[in-house]
Amino acid sequence: MNGFGITAAKGFRAVGVHAGIKKEHLDLGIVVSDVPAAAAGVFTLNRVRAACVQLNESVVQNGILQAIVVNSGNANACTGAKGWEDAQTMQAVTADQLGIPAAHVAVASTGVIGVELPMEQVQTGIKAACREAAVEGFETFAKAITTTDTCLKQYQATVNIEGKQVTIGGAVKGSGMIHPNMATMLGFLTTDAAVGAADLQQLLRDVTNESFNMITVDGDTSTNDMVLVMANGQAGTSLLSPEHPDWPVFAQAFQDVAVYLAKSIARDGEGATKLVEARVHGAKSVEDARKIAKAIIGSNLVKTAVYGADANWGRILCAVGYAGVDIVQESVDIWLGNIPVAKKGMGIPFDEEAAKEYLLGDPVVIKVDLGLGEAAATAYGCDLTYDYVKINASYRS
Amino acid sequence: MNGFGITAAKGFRAVGVHAGIKKEHLDLGIVVSDVPAAAAGVFTLNRVRAACVQLNESVVQNGILQAIVVNSGNANACTGAKGWEDAQTMQAVTADQLGIPAAHVAVASTGVIGVELPMEQVQTGIKAACREAAVEGFETFAKAITTTDTCLKQYQATVNIEGKQVTIGGAVKGSGMIHPNMATMLGFLTTDAAVGAADLQQLLRDVTNESFNMITVDGDTSTNDMVLVMANGQAGTSLLSPEHPDWPVFAQAFQDVAVYLAKSIARDGEGATKLVEARVHGAKSVEDARKIAKAIIGSNLVKTAVYGADANWGRILCAVGYAGVDIVQESVDIWLGNIPVAKKGMGIPFDEEAAKEYLLGDPVVIKVDLGLGEAAATAYGCDLTYDYVKINASYRS
Repeated sequence: MNGFGITAAKGFRAVGVHAGIKKEHLDLGIVVSDVPAAAAGVFTLNRVRAACVQLNESVVQNGILQAIVVNSGNANACTGAKGWEDAQTMQAVTADQLGIPAAHVAVASTGVIGVELPMEQVQTGIKAACREAAVEGFETFAKAITTTDTCLKQYQATVNIEGKQVTIGGAVKGSGMIHPNMATMLGFLTTDAAVGAADLQQLLRDVTNESFNMITVDGDTSTNDMVLVMANGQAGTSLLSPEHPDWPVFAQAFQDVAVYLAKSIARDGEGATKLVEARVHGAKSVEDARKIAKAIIGSNLVKTAVYGADANWGRILCAVGYAGVDIVQESVDIWLGNIPVAKKGMGIPFDEEAAKEYLLGDPVVIKVDLGLGEAAATAYGCDLTYDYVKINASYRS
Repeated sequence: MNGFGITAAKGFRAVGVHAGIKKEHLDLGIVVSDVPAAAAGVFTLNRVRAACVQLNESVVQNGILQAIVVNSGNANACTGAKGWEDAQTMQAVTADQLGIPAAHVAVASTGVIGVELPMEQVQTGIKAACREAAVEGFETFAKAITTTDTCLKQYQATVNIEGKQVTIGGAVKGSGMIHPNMATMLGFLTTDAAVGAADLQQLLRDVTNESFNMITVDGDTSTNDMVLVMANGQAGTSLLSPEHPDWPVFAQAFQDVAVYLAKSIARDGEGATKLVEARVHGAKSVEDARKIAKAIIGSNLVKTAVYGADANWGRILCAVGYAGVDIVQESVDIWLGNIPVAKKGMGIPFDEEAAKEYLLGDPVVIKVDLGLGEAAATAYGCDLTYDYVKINASYRS
C-alpha cells in the first residue's frame, strides 16, 4: 500500500492509537522517519507556552528530527513542572521504543489547558504506536491529532527533480477560526527531499507567512500552536538549496501543500459552513495587504454577514478601515466574487439577488483593491454560525 | 417635570421623533443647550470615517456647541460627496430652525453603511424635533439614537460645588460587543458645569480611556463612533478647572457617568445575557493592564465559556498570553469572582459547582493578578451567544 499525507514521502511511517486520554477516540499518534531527518519548526507567539513548545524549540535548534509523538485531548499547558516532566517522559519513552536519541524526538499536545496528562495511559499508547507505525498509518495518525475537527486534513504533492520523484506530504489539525485565537493548530509536514536544516527552516518561515499565518492574526495564537517539518533525503536527489536550479519547483510544491492544509483548517472552523478568502491587492506593501486581509477575515460582522448571505460590503470597508493601515477610503474597490459592490469607497448599484446567490456558495471570495500600490495578500477564514457558539460554550463538559 | 439623562443638567432640552428613516421607530433626535456651551469630542480611529465624524471634528475644534442632531437607521458613511453634503444640510437646517450658527451644531448618524440618507424625511424630522425639544424629551431622545440596542442607556450624577448643584448626564447607544468593532457607539454627555473647552477635552480624553475605550479594542472602532460633551455653565458656579479645589469631585462624577454608560453598552452586547468585567492588576504599567483586560474581554473563547458557565480558566490565561504584553506565566493568578482557579500560571483545585453557579450570575468578574507591578485596569464586555449570530447574519434584511 502506498502512503498518503504524512506518509506520502518515502521513508516515513505513522499511526494513531487510542491511549485513553479521550474516552473513545484515537488520541495519540506518531510519525517516524526511517533515518534521521533535517528538522524545522515554527511555534506560537503566545507568552504562555505549553511544555511541548518549549521542548521542541530546543529539538529543532539542533536541526535533526526522527520522530514526532502527538497527543490530543489534553494540551499539557499551564501544568507547571509536572507538565514539563511529562513532555520529557513522552520524548524519552518514544526514543527508547524506537532506539533513537531523545533529542531527535519532538512532542506535540492539543486539547484542554491546565489538566495533567494521564501518563500511564500515554506511555502505554506510545509503546503501542511505536510498534504499529507503518506506511498505511497516515489516516489513523491524521485522526489521532484532531480535537473538534470535523474532517481529516491531509495533502501531498510530488515534483520531479533530477529525474527523481520528490514528495511533500502532511497532516494538520485545527478548527475554531471564528477569531483566530480559538484553537490549537498543529501541522506536521514530511518530505523525502534532501534539504539542509537551515534552508528548510527559512523555507518553512516564508511559506508559513503565506499559509498558516494567513489563517491567524499575529499574536493571537494558542499556547500550543506549531508546525514541524522533517526532510529525510530518501528521494535520492542531491542536496536541494536555494542555489539548486529546481529549488523554486520544490519550494512551490511545499507552499502548495501548506496553503492547501491551511485552507482546510480555515474551512473547518468550528461551526463553519464555508471557506472565506479575502484577497487584497493594490497595497503599498505585502505587510499592509496581509493586515487588511486578516482584518476582513477576522471580522465577526463580515463572517456573520457571509453566513446570512447578506451583501453588507460596508462591514468589509469598515474592517479595511480599522486594520491599522494607512489607506485612502476614496480609492477602495470591493468585489464579492466577480460582482463589484463598491467603487472608490462608495456603494454602487448591484444585483442583490446575484450577490445573495454568490454568498450562498462555497468558497466566498472577497476581493479588495486598495488602489495604492502593487502588493497583494490572501487570508483564509470561515463564516460565523450558531454552531460556533454551541461548540465553544461547553468545551470542557 | 425634571429632566433625566441627557436633560438632567440645567438648560438642556431634547427630543426624539420619527422622521421616516426607519419604518416605524423613533429615528431622529436633538439635544439643545439654552446657551452656547463649551464643547469636547472624541472620535473613531477608523481610517474610514463617516461624513458626520469629519464635520464634528472641525466643530469641536472651535470649542463651542449648542446643539447636536442625531439620526439612527442610516450611518451616512461611505456615501461620498453626497453624504458630506447631507451632513452639512442636517447641520444647516438644525441651526436655521434654532436660530444659531451652523458651526455650533454637531451631527451624528448610526445605522447601515453606504446608503444615502432620505433627506426630505430627515429635514422634516429636524424641523419637528427643533419645535418639540423639551426638558422631558430625554427618553424619546435616548430611544431615537438606538439601533439594535435592547434597552435605553441614560445616567446622571449630581455633585455639590460652591453650594450649587452641578449635574452631569448623558445618553448613549451601542450594542454588538462580541468583537469590539461591531457597532457604532454614540455617546452624548451634558453638564451644567462651567468648564473651558480645553479642560473639558482633556477630561473627556482621560475619562474615555477608563470607560468607553475599555469596551473597545484600540483601532477596532466603527466608521461613526463618537462621544460629544456640552458644558453650558448653567449651574452657576465659577469656572471649573484642574486648579479648582472641587475639580476632582467634578471629574470623578463625570467619570462615574461615563463608566456607567460604558458598562450599559457592554452589557447590552448583541445577544448578550450578562456583563463581563476583566479586572487586571499587578501589571508593570496601566497600558499593559489595559491590553490584557481587553484581550480577555475580546476573546470569543472566553465569552462563549462564560455563556456556557464553563470555568475554563485556560482560555483566560491563553488570552493573557497573546495580549502582546511581556508577562511571566509562572506569576499569573486568576479568579472567577472570588473563587481562585489558577495560581502561579497553573490550575488549582476548586469547587466546579460553585464556579458554575458563579458564572450563571450577572455580572461575571474575571480577576487576574500578573504579579509584576502595581498598575491595574478594568475592561467591560459581555458573553457570546446564539443570538449574536442571529442578529448579525441578516442585519440589512
